[in-house]
Amino acid sequence: METRVRVLIDCHDAKGLVYKISKVFYDRDLNIDSNREFVDKENEKFFMRTVVSGTFEIEELDAALREVAPEDAHIRVIAPQDKKIVILATKESHALGDILIRYAAGELGAQIECVIANHDTLRDLVERFDIPFFHVPAEGLSREEHEAKVMAKIDGNAFDYIVLAKYMRILTPAFVSAYPQRIINIHHSFLPAFIGANPYKQAFERGVKIIGATAHFVTDDLDEGPIIAQDVIPVNHRFDWRDMQRAGRDVEKVVLSRALNLVLHDRVFVNGNKTIVF
Amino acid sequence: METRVRVLIDCHDAKGLVYKISKVFYDRDLNIDSNREFVDKENEKFFMRTVVSGTFEIEELDAALREVAPEDAHIRVIAPQDKKIVILATKESHALGDILIRYAAGELGAQIECVIANHDTLRDLVERFDIPFFHVPAEGLSREEHEAKVMAKIDGNAFDYIVLAKYMRILTPAFVSAYPQRIINIHHSFLPAFIGANPYKQAFERGVKIIGATAHFVTDDLDEGPIIAQDVIPVNHRFDWRDMQRAGRDVEKVVLSRALNLVLHDRVFVNGNKTIVF
Amino acid sequence: METRVRVLIDCHDAKGLVYKISKVFYDRDLNIDSNREFVDKENEKFFMRTVVSGTFEIEELDAALREVAPEDAHIRVIAPQDKKIVILATKESHALGDILIRYAAGELGAQIECVIANHDTLRDLVERFDIPFFHVPAEGLSREEHEAKVMAKIDGNAFDYIVLAKYMRILTPAFVSAYPQRIINIHHSFLPAFIGANPYKQAFERGVKIIGATAHFVTDDLDEGPIIAQDVIPVNHRFDWRDMQRAGRDVEKVVLSRALNLVLHDRVFVNGNKTIVF
Amino acid sequence: METRVRVLIDCHDAKGLVYKISKVFYDRDLNIDSNREFVDKENEKFFMRTVVSGTFEIEELDAALREVAPEDAHIRVIAPQDKKIVILATKESHALGDILIRYAAGELGAQIECVIANHDTLRDLVERFDIPFFHVPAEGLSREEHEAKVMAKIDGNAFDYIVLAKYMRILTPAFVSAYPQRIINIHHSFLPAFIGANPYKQAFERGVKIIGATAHFVTDDLDEGPIIAQDVIPVNHRFDWRDMQRAGRDVEKVVLSRALNLVLHDRVFVNGNKTIVF
Repeated sequence: METRVRVLIDCHDAKGLVYKISKVFYDRDLNIDSNREFVDKENEKFFMRTVVSGTFEIEELDAALREVAPEDAHIRVIAPQDKKIVILATKESHALGDILIRYAAGELGAQIECVIANHDTLRDLVERFDIPFFHVPAEGLSREEHEAKVMAKIDGNAFDYIVLAKYMRILTPAFVSAYPQRIINIHHSFLPAFIGANPYKQAFERGVKIIGATAHFVTDDLDEGPIIAQDVIPVNHRFDWRDMQRAGRDVEKVVLSRALNLVLHDRVFVNGNKTIVF
Repeated sequence: METRVRVLIDCHDAKGLVYKISKVFYDRDLNIDSNREFVDKENEKFFMRTVVSGTFEIEELDAALREVAPEDAHIRVIAPQDKKIVILATKESHALGDILIRYAAGELGAQIECVIANHDTLRDLVERFDIPFFHVPAEGLSREEHEAKVMAKIDGNAFDYIVLAKYMRILTPAFVSAYPQRIINIHHSFLPAFIGANPYKQAFERGVKIIGATAHFVTDDLDEGPIIAQDVIPVNHRFDWRDMQRAGRDVEKVVLSRALNLVLHDRVFVNGNKTIVF
Repeated sequence: METRVRVLIDCHDAKGLVYKISKVFYDRDLNIDSNREFVDKENEKFFMRTVVSGTFEIEELDAALREVAPEDAHIRVIAPQDKKIVILATKESHALGDILIRYAAGELGAQIECVIANHDTLRDLVERFDIPFFHVPAEGLSREEHEAKVMAKIDGNAFDYIVLAKYMRILTPAFVSAYPQRIINIHHSFLPAFIGANPYKQAFERGVKIIGATAHFVTDDLDEGPIIAQDVIPVNHRFDWRDMQRAGRDVEKVVLSRALNLVLHDRVFVNGNKTIVF
Repeated sequence: METRVRVLIDCHDAKGLVYKISKVFYDRDLNIDSNREFVDKENEKFFMRTVVSGTFEIEELDAALREVAPEDAHIRVIAPQDKKIVILATKESHALGDILIRYAAGELGAQIECVIANHDTLRDLVERFDIPFFHVPAEGLSREEHEAKVMAKIDGNAFDYIVLAKYMRILTPAFVSAYPQRIINIHHSFLPAFIGANPYKQAFERGVKIIGATAHFVTDDLDEGPIIAQDVIPVNHRFDWRDMQRAGRDVEKVVLSRALNLVLHDRVFVNGNKTIVF
């Protein structure tokens, strides 16, 4: 029976890597359905994402690749299947809603385990889609206490990624470090412009002619994590900050969904504080 | 009590129009909250959209404007309130879903009377939002017979606009002429490129590097009606036509919602086969 | 004989302004060829740009407008004619070259009085277009001493605007304040991201997926003046900072020329630290 | 001494191609500086562009690659060096001027052999850059007679590509077939919309909200050749067709220069009526 897998390799660059890896595929008579490579010369790092198909055992292929790759190589042989995600939100429904519509259409490429929000506003919308919704209020709690309650809900689920669909709270370093390269956020500005609170107000004050949104992995540094996708739209002097916010929502939701789609299809490598997107 | 209205005027261009109209506002001590004008010199037509507020009677203002405007003037004094729309769809959920999420958030600016589809696929999604869904199958019916059944459902509702949210059937001239300038369609190409069936396949065959979507009023000529909004995204040789279709959906839904928002806020004038968008 | 002028008015907002101003036009039997207004509600300011034509004296029209406008009104009645500009540059030729090509085609809408550069690199290019080129080296000079030499060259010319076409030196507050709202700069980033030196290197380090350029009036605050125009292009992980620089040049030159064109056609009002662009 | 070459291969797809080709590189101890591949599954074609460096003989590498590649393979081992181009133009200077400025800055990556135009308008501009300019008037000549005169000028030069920088004449099939895949045109519309004469007038009549430009290889079918690059800008109801033309020029010149840059760096494969752009 034919198997199809995504092979992801990143390691120090070395001569002959493409040859050695493609030899592993050739020796097993595999088809290369697509192949993308990149060498980061500054840091001498090699990245490769190949989709191969044929008759083979995943474990055996994985082992063979490990044999030819450098010792530091990070190798993943992934059979495509739906990932599992947990969504954190607050009150706004556009980014979450965009994900829900794709989910209902069977186009998301992920199972939504649950939605957790610090307000109860979105319960009705989420439950319309038969997805568990947990309201975890933050009032009167320290950040740590609140996150402990959130993590209690999350950890009941096996999941691959946490998606912050306009979750308007800053996560603690402890929370972030518990899920490295697994938390995806949408920031409502064209980062690194307008880091922090109310970027649309900042954009309005600055009088910019273009606004944008940025999807990125979350790290300890606020709005400083590796950028996955960005997009922009023009604005003009007739936009007050609420108009910018309204117009920006379309960009936010589309950029988040695009980034999520890339991540769910194993198309994104994190390389230091940047991403390689194949 | 303060009233706020949108005043829309279009007529043959003539000297003194701005003066005479602004005098009507001034004589009533109204505030001009925003004002946009345009003169189509080729056709000698004048267009104006003004938002005024103050203490006045709508009927009296309307009458006063009629007195100063040319005889052929088309004048509307509109108290902003939610319009009513009917949505026609087929099987795809992205454009419809985008509208539903805005609707649920109270951001659509319209009441959705019902969704009518020639397949039953979208029933579940629509009914999750407590909106009436009518399945009107087309199999075995002539175009006229099918439309008669659709119109039977529609005409039970008072409504302002019909939105074709990826309704994959061509309307008859009779249907179209029953609702002039009231049917809004999203075409999945950057019109006038790729008119007609499966534009993504056409785009793929042609090898374009950018694809787009076009929201337009429906007229008798297929995909030839006045364009309200368009947008595009880049593609490349790695996209097959299904990839283009997938990527294009985000443009389609955003362009349709943007056009709908413009129309619902009375920002669109039809000028021959073009639009003025204020 | 028919005269055509641009009327620019900005003042505190007040009821009846449009009426009073359009009455002035109406009383003189003028045609309104185009008309744009904007009210900045936050600051209660009114902006208007009208193109009128007819038989009239500019001074008389100006005086009549002053009579009906608020005392603080800034009124300009401008007979369209080529402005005069001085260009400052350093070594890069793309932004300067774009201006020169438009100039040679008679499409710039401005007379170039001279080009002044702190290196001699661009002399050959500039002199090909029969434009005076002055090399004012900065080596061994304080910023003030250098600028004094530059101003000596500039002030020999009557001019309207100074265009910084990739002039890679920071101007002193004294220089800037000598030409308020008359110095236009192109910054090679999507401001306010990457203020200061080598923005492409900064963009590369940050791993952004989009880069841009910003044309703005120069004020005392580095890269903080009112933005006139911005644009962007996508980049990806395959771009090192020199690739970004190379790709960015096309955006820089087009954005600067677009901003210059707007300014030269009197389409830009400065409103605090923002612009109104009609 | 280290040599660096671009290796371009296109052939029928077959299992093991990447392995066999990378083995050739590995056996010669070459560095792979960058590598891009694409498989057109519909037509079972394989495309590869690799930049390799090391100590080797170009002829030997070429021979070795031919040994492992399928018989139908089209293989090029190219030592990067400036190509030679001939430019055809008419009266407009923006696209030509953009190329000239890059040329003068040493950034074009090509030697301009000469500029040939059917009007004398551009002589002054071209000669400012010390490039031969030939005026070949078309009046009173048949298309064939005129092209014979043009070809007489061209064939005096060894050249790689003919660039039509807004050359406003249609070439005969005979001319086109004399230079297959070697003529690059900029069409002033977002093809396939508005094929043929005065696309801006067509765009204006149609009332589009976005206009664009398309760089493509010229084939016998008017404006139907393989597309290399496209870009767009927004327009609105205030643009008459001349405004569209003016605004469109910036897109035209940037798209042509971008396409030219891709072609000159051997980044473009023609695949039937499409391109692969690496």
